Amino acid sequence: MKQTMSPTQLDQQDPLRDLRDQFDLPAGVIYLNGNSLGPLPKATKERMRLAVEKEWGEGLIRSWNSADWVNLPQRLGAMIAPLIGAQADEVIVADSTSVNLFKLIHAGLKLNPGRNKLVTELGNFPTDLYVLQGVARDNDVELCALERESVIDAIDEQTALVVLTQVHYKSGEMFDLAAVTRRAHERGALVLWDLSHSVGAVPVDLNLAEADLAVGCGYKYLNGGPGAPSFLYVARHHQQRFEQPLTGWFGHASPFAMSDEYEPAADLSRALCGTPAVLGCIALEEGVRLSQQAQMSLVRQKSIALSELFIKLVNERIEGYGFELASPVDAQKRGSQVSLQHPEAYAVMQALIAQGVIGDFRAPNILRFGFAPLYTRFFDVERAVDTLLEVMRDELWRDPRFQKRAKVT
Amino acid sequence: MKQTMSPTQLDQQDPLRDLRDQFDLPAGVIYLNGNSLGPLPKATKERMRLAVEKEWGEGLIRSWNSADWVNLPQRLGAMIAPLIGAQADEVIVADSTSVNLFKLIHAGLKLNPGRNKLVTELGNFPTDLYVLQGVARDNDVELCALERESVIDAIDEQTALVVLTQVHYKSGEMFDLAAVTRRAHERGALVLWDLSHSVGAVPVDLNLAEADLAVGCGYKYLNGGPGAPSFLYVARHHQQRFEQPLTGWFGHASPFAMSDEYEPAADLSRALCGTPAVLGCIALEEGVRLSQQAQMSLVRQKSIALSELFIKLVNERIEGYGFELASPVDAQKRGSQVSLQHPEAYAVMQALIAQGVIGDFRAPNILRFGFAPLYTRFFDVERAVDTLLEVMRDELWRDPRFQKRAKVT
Repeated sequence: MKQTMSPTQLDQQDPLRDLRDQFDLPAGVIYLNGNSLGPLPKATKERMRLAVEKEWGEGLIRSWNSADWVNLPQRLGAMIAPLIGAQADEVIVADSTSVNLFKLIHAGLKLNPGRNKLVTELGNFPTDLYVLQGVARDNDVELCALERESVIDAIDEQTALVVLTQVHYKSGEMFDLAAVTRRAHERGALVLWDLSHSVGAVPVDLNLAEADLAVGCGYKYLNGGPGAPSFLYVARHHQQRFEQPLTGWFGHASPFAMSDEYEPAADLSRALCGTPAVLGCIALEEGVRLSQQAQMSLVRQKSIALSELFIKLVNERIEGYGFELASPVDAQKRGSQVSLQHPEAYAVMQALIAQGVIGDFRAPNILRFGFAPLYTRFFDVERAVDTLLEVMRDELWRDPRFQKRAKVT
Repeated sequence: MKQTMSPTQLDQQDPLRDLRDQFDLPAGVIYLNGNSLGPLPKATKERMRLAVEKEWGEGLIRSWNSADWVNLPQRLGAMIAPLIGAQADEVIVADSTSVNLFKLIHAGLKLNPGRNKLVTELGNFPTDLYVLQGVARDNDVELCALERESVIDAIDEQTALVVLTQVHYKSGEMFDLAAVTRRAHERGALVLWDLSHSVGAVPVDLNLAEADLAVGCGYKYLNGGPGAPSFLYVARHHQQRFEQPLTGWFGHASPFAMSDEYEPAADLSRALCGTPAVLGCIALEEGVRLSQQAQMSLVRQKSIALSELFIKLVNERIEGYGFELASPVDAQKRGSQVSLQHPEAYAVMQALIAQGVIGDFRAPNILRFGFAPLYTRFFDVERAVDTLLEVMRDELWRDPRFQKRAKVT
């Protein structure tokens, strides 16, 4: 980043600047929460209208074949694959991230027989911890959850599977995916990567890292819409032995033969369970198309530039209000978000949102700002910082309506 | 049914006749496949446009609170509850039917400790069998799958859970839900009912039957759209001890506290796993609204009248072509569909569909005709029979393009 350029100049030189036009961003809003829910792509509006009115309304049951609904999980998987350095047949879309975590944790245990320890990080995204705890509760498995600095050393010859989120949801801190995978493999453990806060924002190369298993979220940087289906990845060399517990009919070798005996599909379709969520899949498809248009190296470059500008401006312009950086200073160790710590984080974020700058709060004291390179401008970053200053200087956060916690924060 | 009235007269006297106007049925099509995928309610079009463009597009992340996305699972459950004789807090919407079967089979085993046998019916809907087989494969549990006539007697003092589909997907044959539940309870077993082919078409009273657990499908008679989320039911007296294996964050007592420890929600929200499929839930909500408008006794009455007319006309008009009734003759023992057996069932159904009458084929030799009372007319029944006659008389089914199996049948 050339330090001397203004945000507007940076926007003019941004090679990704035209992509913003493909999103339907509401006027008067600076949206820095694409790490939680990506905004609506313009193309999705018409595509959803077609899906509802033509494919469902007119095509009815025939659309399973004529609109190729039946292959949505595989088709979407193949579209996501290049974003995470995977082959088309190594990725499939299904269910929620939580359900896919459950499948892959069980599958990972079976892929590494004779070992019964699961290793993860304390403070990992809650659903990762909760699903792991459920698996440990219900099976003869030991769950070892440790502070980040102790995780790697805890991987031992009893460890079947390490479950980590590449980019931390709260701090944005990023694991070196390849290095951790290598270390785990050296000790005979497999790794399941949660890419929910990486995919679409950070370059990921699962094949290069010889990664085993991964899951990721469709509604964050992939812009797939609220509650979009999730994806999962299983390295090709694990697929033959891949066995998961949710043996529903869409994972069958031949679902419409309607036989009485479960026989898993020969390929990764065996990771499917029930009937795919067609409407959710279709919205996700449009979202993924946008990520396909951007070169990941440019995405990463812009993500870093946006984040660095934010940190620089916060340091320069917001002094004496008690904010502390809760993300790594080193851009190479950060995902596409910057988090600030503040004792009044909840109220400050509510006041900021009321001023049109949408980030989010994470308990107990974190303000998160996501910088999604496909539509965030350098101009937005400067405006966000100046609005935060306004919120603090004018004590807007003291308004009583910003104190009361909403159900979803 | 007054035998002397013409189909047109029957339609004129139909108390549900106005509901048809609320569906967007394509011209020139007689749709007898609502038992597989219900048609598009007109209201869903505008509702989905609002969900996509306003709630997602403009509301963005804020809509979790402002559009109440966060309560969709509970709100939808409460809407479905009266259709199945349940209390509002006994039903919740989540995931797919297959995933919910998995949750409830595990939960049922835990609710009935000291017993390790699961009983089901051979020829049950495939996903029910497959999920049961997966549970048996991965746990110390015996699965006992028997022909229908032997199922009841197989329920013994080792049986933890009986898993049955109330209305058979292929034959339409209906179990007496209350009687089977009573028999199972006498032997100390619990019952999990799959209501996928019942809900919205057949009166169900789970509370009256003192039923334990149930699941059901959102995209058949509830008209919730392709791959709509499923619902599950847990009787109130089981909820305190209800524990399921998919311990994702939406089942937590306080998901947004983001704590490291899983603590199940006090209520049936503990049956949730990941982030709800918002777009799918919203489409389902509009579908369920239509079922709420119809009195179930009138729905059942019309369903029987439609089915009886179909059987009568097939008997009268289609002779000597080798069709056999594959559903019970007794209307009280049938759900809302009639199945015919024919050696060339696949090709015959394809020819029929090409003529604008949409039913479906089920391997190996079944033609299924669903009579969804909310939008099917007596006139449609007569036209369907006459078109079937035409297909046979003119040997339209011999066309080679009707021989090749599509991926989804």
